[in-house]
Amino acid sequence: MADKVNIGLIGAGRIGRVHAETLTRLVPGARLLAVTDVRLDAARDLAAQFGIARVADEPAALLADPDIQAVAICSSTDTHARFIQEAARSGKHIFCEKPIDLDLARIDATLAAVDRAAVKLQVGFNRRFDPNFSRIHDLVASGKLGRPEVVRITSRDPAPPPIEYIKVSGGIFLDMTIHDFDMARYLMGDEVEEVYASGSVLVDPAIGAAGDLDTALVSLRFRSGAIGVIDNSRRAVYGYDQRVEVFGSLGSAQANNNTPTNTVVSDASGVHADKPLYFFLERYQAAYVAEMRAFVGCILNDTTPPVTGRDARAPVVMGLAAWRSCREHRPVSLKEVEPG
Amino acid sequence: MADKVNIGLIGAGRIGRVHAETLTRLVPGARLLAVTDVRLDAARDLAAQFGIARVADEPAALLADPDIQAVAICSSTDTHARFIQEAARSGKHIFCEKPIDLDLARIDATLAAVDRAAVKLQVGFNRRFDPNFSRIHDLVASGKLGRPEVVRITSRDPAPPPIEYIKVSGGIFLDMTIHDFDMARYLMGDEVEEVYASGSVLVDPAIGAAGDLDTALVSLRFRSGAIGVIDNSRRAVYGYDQRVEVFGSLGSAQANNNTPTNTVVSDASGVHADKPLYFFLERYQAAYVAEMRAFVGCILNDTTPPVTGRDARAPVVMGLAAWRSCREHRPVSLKEVEPG
Amino acid sequence: MADKVNIGLIGAGRIGRVHAETLTRLVPGARLLAVTDVRLDAARDLAAQFGIARVADEPAALLADPDIQAVAICSSTDTHARFIQEAARSGKHIFCEKPIDLDLARIDATLAAVDRAAVKLQVGFNRRFDPNFSRIHDLVASGKLGRPEVVRITSRDPAPPPIEYIKVSGGIFLDMTIHDFDMARYLMGDEVEEVYASGSVLVDPAIGAAGDLDTALVSLRFRSGAIGVIDNSRRAVYGYDQRVEVFGSLGSAQANNNTPTNTVVSDASGVHADKPLYFFLERYQAAYVAEMRAFVGCILNDTTPPVTGRDARAPVVMGLAAWRSCREHRPVSLKEVEPG
Amino acid sequence: MADKVNIGLIGAGRIGRVHAETLTRLVPGARLLAVTDVRLDAARDLAAQFGIARVADEPAALLADPDIQAVAICSSTDTHARFIQEAARSGKHIFCEKPIDLDLARIDATLAAVDRAAVKLQVGFNRRFDPNFSRIHDLVASGKLGRPEVVRITSRDPAPPPIEYIKVSGGIFLDMTIHDFDMARYLMGDEVEEVYASGSVLVDPAIGAAGDLDTALVSLRFRSGAIGVIDNSRRAVYGYDQRVEVFGSLGSAQANNNTPTNTVVSDASGVHADKPLYFFLERYQAAYVAEMRAFVGCILNDTTPPVTGRDARAPVVMGLAAWRSCREHRPVSLKEVEPG
Repeated sequence: MADKVNIGLIGAGRIGRVHAETLTRLVPGARLLAVTDVRLDAARDLAAQFGIARVADEPAALLADPDIQAVAICSSTDTHARFIQEAARSGKHIFCEKPIDLDLARIDATLAAVDRAAVKLQVGFNRRFDPNFSRIHDLVASGKLGRPEVVRITSRDPAPPPIEYIKVSGGIFLDMTIHDFDMARYLMGDEVEEVYASGSVLVDPAIGAAGDLDTALVSLRFRSGAIGVIDNSRRAVYGYDQRVEVFGSLGSAQANNNTPTNTVVSDASGVHADKPLYFFLERYQAAYVAEMRAFVGCILNDTTPPVTGRDARAPVVMGLAAWRSCREHRPVSLKEVEPG
Repeated sequence: MADKVNIGLIGAGRIGRVHAETLTRLVPGARLLAVTDVRLDAARDLAAQFGIARVADEPAALLADPDIQAVAICSSTDTHARFIQEAARSGKHIFCEKPIDLDLARIDATLAAVDRAAVKLQVGFNRRFDPNFSRIHDLVASGKLGRPEVVRITSRDPAPPPIEYIKVSGGIFLDMTIHDFDMARYLMGDEVEEVYASGSVLVDPAIGAAGDLDTALVSLRFRSGAIGVIDNSRRAVYGYDQRVEVFGSLGSAQANNNTPTNTVVSDASGVHADKPLYFFLERYQAAYVAEMRAFVGCILNDTTPPVTGRDARAPVVMGLAAWRSCREHRPVSLKEVEPG
Repeated sequence: MADKVNIGLIGAGRIGRVHAETLTRLVPGARLLAVTDVRLDAARDLAAQFGIARVADEPAALLADPDIQAVAICSSTDTHARFIQEAARSGKHIFCEKPIDLDLARIDATLAAVDRAAVKLQVGFNRRFDPNFSRIHDLVASGKLGRPEVVRITSRDPAPPPIEYIKVSGGIFLDMTIHDFDMARYLMGDEVEEVYASGSVLVDPAIGAAGDLDTALVSLRFRSGAIGVIDNSRRAVYGYDQRVEVFGSLGSAQANNNTPTNTVVSDASGVHADKPLYFFLERYQAAYVAEMRAFVGCILNDTTPPVTGRDARAPVVMGLAAWRSCREHRPVSLKEVEPG
Repeated sequence: MADKVNIGLIGAGRIGRVHAETLTRLVPGARLLAVTDVRLDAARDLAAQFGIARVADEPAALLADPDIQAVAICSSTDTHARFIQEAARSGKHIFCEKPIDLDLARIDATLAAVDRAAVKLQVGFNRRFDPNFSRIHDLVASGKLGRPEVVRITSRDPAPPPIEYIKVSGGIFLDMTIHDFDMARYLMGDEVEEVYASGSVLVDPAIGAAGDLDTALVSLRFRSGAIGVIDNSRRAVYGYDQRVEVFGSLGSAQANNNTPTNTVVSDASGVHADKPLYFFLERYQAAYVAEMRAFVGCILNDTTPPVTGRDARAPVVMGLAAWRSCREHRPVSLKEVEPG
C-alpha cells in the first residue's frame, strides 16, 4: 500500500497556489502529481514552480489518470458541484474549496453523488484548523467551559473585494459570513435553528448598488437554547479582525487576533503593538497546512474527513436564511429555506 | 454664593450608602446634610457613620428643608417618579438612580414636572463615567474612529439577583440591559431606531418561572445605519464582564475589563492573570465618584447635567421595545412602543 | 479606649498634602488633629483645606499636645532623625517618610531612641502597599513560586528632579534605588549580602556635574544564593515605569504597569494602549491609603508596623554599598559599609 | 549562473535535521545535495527522509565534490574550527553553528583561513532572525527609540541539558549566555567593553559539581556608556522564556514570549493564557528558516552575510570575560581576555 497520496489540483489561481505550495512542501503524505486550469499557462507556471509533473487544461485528463487518488478543487465556485460529481464518478477522493454551491438542490445532488461513489469529501472551511479556534472548539467539546450559552464571532476583512467579485459571490452572507456560520456550528457543537440578519451599506455605495451589504449582524439561535452573534464588515482599516468567544456556564474562552510579532513599543504618545496579520493568507497559513494534512491523513488512514458534506451544506442553509431574514425583516427558521 | 451644595439623601440602602460615602469624602463641593429612609434605623446608622446632621423617616421633611438644594434619590424604583416630582415642586435639584419609571406616561409626566420647576435632573447611568467608556465616547465624538459603524457591548453579571428582585425588576431588558442601551446611545452619539431581542433561560429555571430571561441578545439599528449588539448573562463565573467596542471607518476602540492588579503568574499549568473586578461596586467605584462630582459641578456652575431626562427616557423605550420584540418574535421599531 | 487615633502632621509640602487628604478622607480610624510646618502659611492652607483644627510653625507644640498620639513626619530628609527622636521622647507613635537619614550612626541612634520609648515606628516605603507588589510578595511568601531564585526590578521616573534636589538627595542609589532596595528585600523575604553597582550619565550632563548618575544598574546577591537586578533611569518618556518580577523554582510572577484605562485603539498605524500612570502620586495613590490604614491599624490594635526600623535601615546600607561599589568599581559586601 | 546553491550538510544530528528540513522545503534558492556524518546510518536516514542524493561518512568527500558550493556545519563544537578551515581551503562558502570554538587563538586562525579563501562565513546566531528581535533591532537602528541607554535580556531554558553535555559545553556563559551576548550587540548596535558576572547553583547541585552555574546574571557596559543586563536560568517550569527590552531616550521596545495560540480562558479561578512555546526548536522555527534564506541569498547575490566572523568571535570574548569576572569576583574588561 502506498505511503503517499497522489493528488491532482484543479485550478491554478490564488488559492490553488496556496494548496500547491502546501502539498509539495509541507504535507509529507502528499504527492502533487498534476495540475489543471482553463488557463493552461497558469497551470504550466504553477507546475514549473512546484515541480508538478503533469499539466492539463481540463480536469477530465486528471480524472482519467489512474495514478491520481484525490483531487483538490480550487476552481471558481460555479464549477465546484460539477467537478465534485465528476471526481466522485471517477472514484477520486475530493478536497473542495467552499462552498460546494449556493443552490441547495444542487448541493444535495452533489453530496448524493459523493455518497454513491463512497469517496471522501472534505470542504475547505480552513478556519477550523486555526490553532486558536481549534483550541476553543476542544475546550467546549471537553466540557471545560460547561454548557455553552453564547458565541460571539467578529469577522472583518481589511478591504472589500472587487465589485465584479461581489456580484457573483452570493452576497456577504454566502461569501463572507458563511465561514462564521461554519465556525459557530464548529465551536458550539450544536445546530442553529433560526437566524435574524440585518445589515447596512456603510463602506462603499457601489456594494449596495450591486445588491449587497458591507456591514452585517446575524443573531443565531441554537437547538440547545444557546444564542450567538456574528458581526461582519468588509473593511477594517487595521487589518483582518478574526476573533471568537464562547461563553459557558463554567467559563469563557476568547481567541484574539494573531500578530506578526509580540513586540510592544512605549513612547511619548502611548504603548503600541502590532496590527493583526493582514488577511487570510497570512492569518490562516498554518490552517491551510493543517487542513491538507488532515485531508491526506484521512485518505491514508481511511477515516472520515473532519469537515464533511453535511458541514458543507449547513452554512449555505444559514446563508440563505440570513438573506431571507434580511429581505423579509424578520427572524427566519432554517427549515423555511429547505427545499420542499 | 455658596461654594458647597447641601444635599439630602433619600434612601439609605446599598446604593444610598455608596453615594453617602462619595458625597462626604470625595466630592469637595458637596455637603451631605440630611438622610431619610422609611426604615428610620437605616437612616440613623448611615448618618452616624458619615456624620450626616439631619435624619428623617420620610422625604417630606427633607424637601421642606430650606437649607437643602439638591436631593439624591436612592429609594426603590417604584418611588422614583413620585419623589422626583415632589422634589421638583420643592425646587430641589435632583439626582435619581435609574430608571425613573418603567411606564412611559409616568416618565413623561415626571420630566414635565422637572421642566416646569426648572430644576436640574441627572439620572444615575453611572457607567458613562467609567474612565474606559468615557475614553471611547470621547474617541468617537472626536471623530478619531471615523464614522461609527458597529457597537458591541458585553455585559454579564457575576451572579443573578434574588428571584424576588427579578419579579419586580421589569425583567432583564429593563433592569440589566437598560444600562447597555444607555451605553450604546452614549458611545455612538446616535439614536437607536429599531431593536430585535431574543433570549433564553439557561442559568436558572426559576428566572424563567418568574417570566424573565437570564441570557439575552439585542440587535440594534441606529438612525445612521450603524448597527449594534448587546449580549447579557446573569451569571459569569469569572466575575463582572463589562466590555464595549466601537468599530468605525478609521479604527476601532475596545474597553476591556478592569482587574484588581496587573500581575501575571507563569507556572507549569499556564500564564494566569486576575479575574475582572467582582461586581458593579468594585468596577464602577471611580464612576460613582465622577457622576456625583459632575452632578454637584453642574449645580455649582449652572450647567446642564451630563445625563439628562431625555437620556433617562430613551433606554426605557428601548427596553420596552426589546420586550415586545422578544414576545412577538420580530424586530420592533422604537416608535411602536411610544404612547399614542 | 479611643476608636480613633489623633494624628499630628509635620510638614505641609507635597507628600504632607497627600497624607493629609488620605488621613482626613480615607482612613476611618484616623483623626488629623494638627499640622505644623516651618512655613506657617503652608500649614494654615492645608489646615483650611482639610479642616485640621490646630496649626503650629514648629513640631514642639504638636509633640507637647497630649491629645496627639501619633505623628506623620513629612518634612525634609535632614530633619527626619531629629523629629523621630523628639517624637519618641514625647511618647508619640511615628510614621516617617523614607529615609530616616543617610548616616548609619544617626539612624542607629534614632532607632535606639524609638526602642527606648517603646513607640511604634513605620517608615514610608509605600510601594510595599501597592496591590501588584503586595500580591507578588504574598505569592513568594506562600511558597507558590517555590524557592525564589531571581528578582528583577525596573524603576524609571518620567523626568529627573531639579538639580538642586539632586545635590542634597544622597544621589540616585540613596534617593531613587532605595525604594527598589526595599522592594527587593520585601519581595524575596531575604537579605542582600552584596551589591555591584554601575551607572552612567546619559540623560542630563548637569546630573553628572552634580556628582550623580541618571542611569544605573545594581546586581544583588542574597543570602540564599538568589540573585537580583535593579535598573533605574531618571527619564522614561512614556511615564513612570514600575515593574517587578520574581522567578522561582515553581514559577514566575510579574507586575506590570498600571494605566489610566484598559482601552485599546486599533487603527491603520497599529494597536495602541495607554501609557503607564504618570508618576508616583498617580501610581501609588492606593498604596498611600493602604500604608496609612496599616499605620493607624497597628496603633489601634497594638501590633508591629509592617515596615519597621530595621526595614528603614537596610536599604540605606544597600545604597551606601552601591555607591562604594560604583566608586571602587568592584562588588561590595554590605558588611563593609557597616560602622566599625 | 545557477539560480540554486548546492549545499552539503555536515552533521546529521538534531540541528542538522532542522537545517535539512529547512533547506529542502523552505529555501527555494537551496538544493541540499549531500550529507555527511560520522554515524553513517544517521546520514543515510536523513538523506532518505529528505531526498538528499549523496551520502558520506566524512566531510572530505563532500568538500571534494565540485558540485557543492556551500556547506552547513552542524557537527559537534570541537570540530567546527577544523571543518571551517577545510571548507575554506576547498573554496566552499560556510554556514556554521555557533560557536566556532571556545579558544580565541583557534577562532582567529579559523577566521584568517576564511579571509584568505575569500569565502563567505555565516554563524548560526539564529535569534537575530526572530521576527520579534529583528523588529527591535530595526527600531533601535532607525533611531526611533533615540539613544539606546539600557538593554535587558531574560533568557531561561525550560530544563537543563544532560550533565554530560554541560561538562563539555564551556559552561553557562559560553553555551547559553553566548546567544544573549550576541543579542546584546545586535540590538544595541554597540560593543560591550566590560562585564560583571555572578551566578549560583540553585537548580541542580550536579551542575555545580560539574563546575558550572545554573542561574546567572551578567551586567554589561557598552562603549557608548549604555548599560545592560542578562539573566539566565537553566530551568523555567513554564517553558522557554525569551524576552528582550531596549530602553532609549525616545522610548522603549519590548519583545514578549511567543505562544502556541492567542486564546484566553476565564473561569472561576482566574484568566488563563498559553505558556510560551516550549523550547528553541518551537520558538525559533521561523528564525531557522530566515537565517538559511539569508545565507543562501548572500551567496546568490554575493553580499556580506548578516552574521559575520567578527560577530562569531565577539560573544566568545564576552563569555571568557564573564567566566573570569565570576571567578575573580570583579568586573572584567574585554581587553583582559584578548590574546597577548
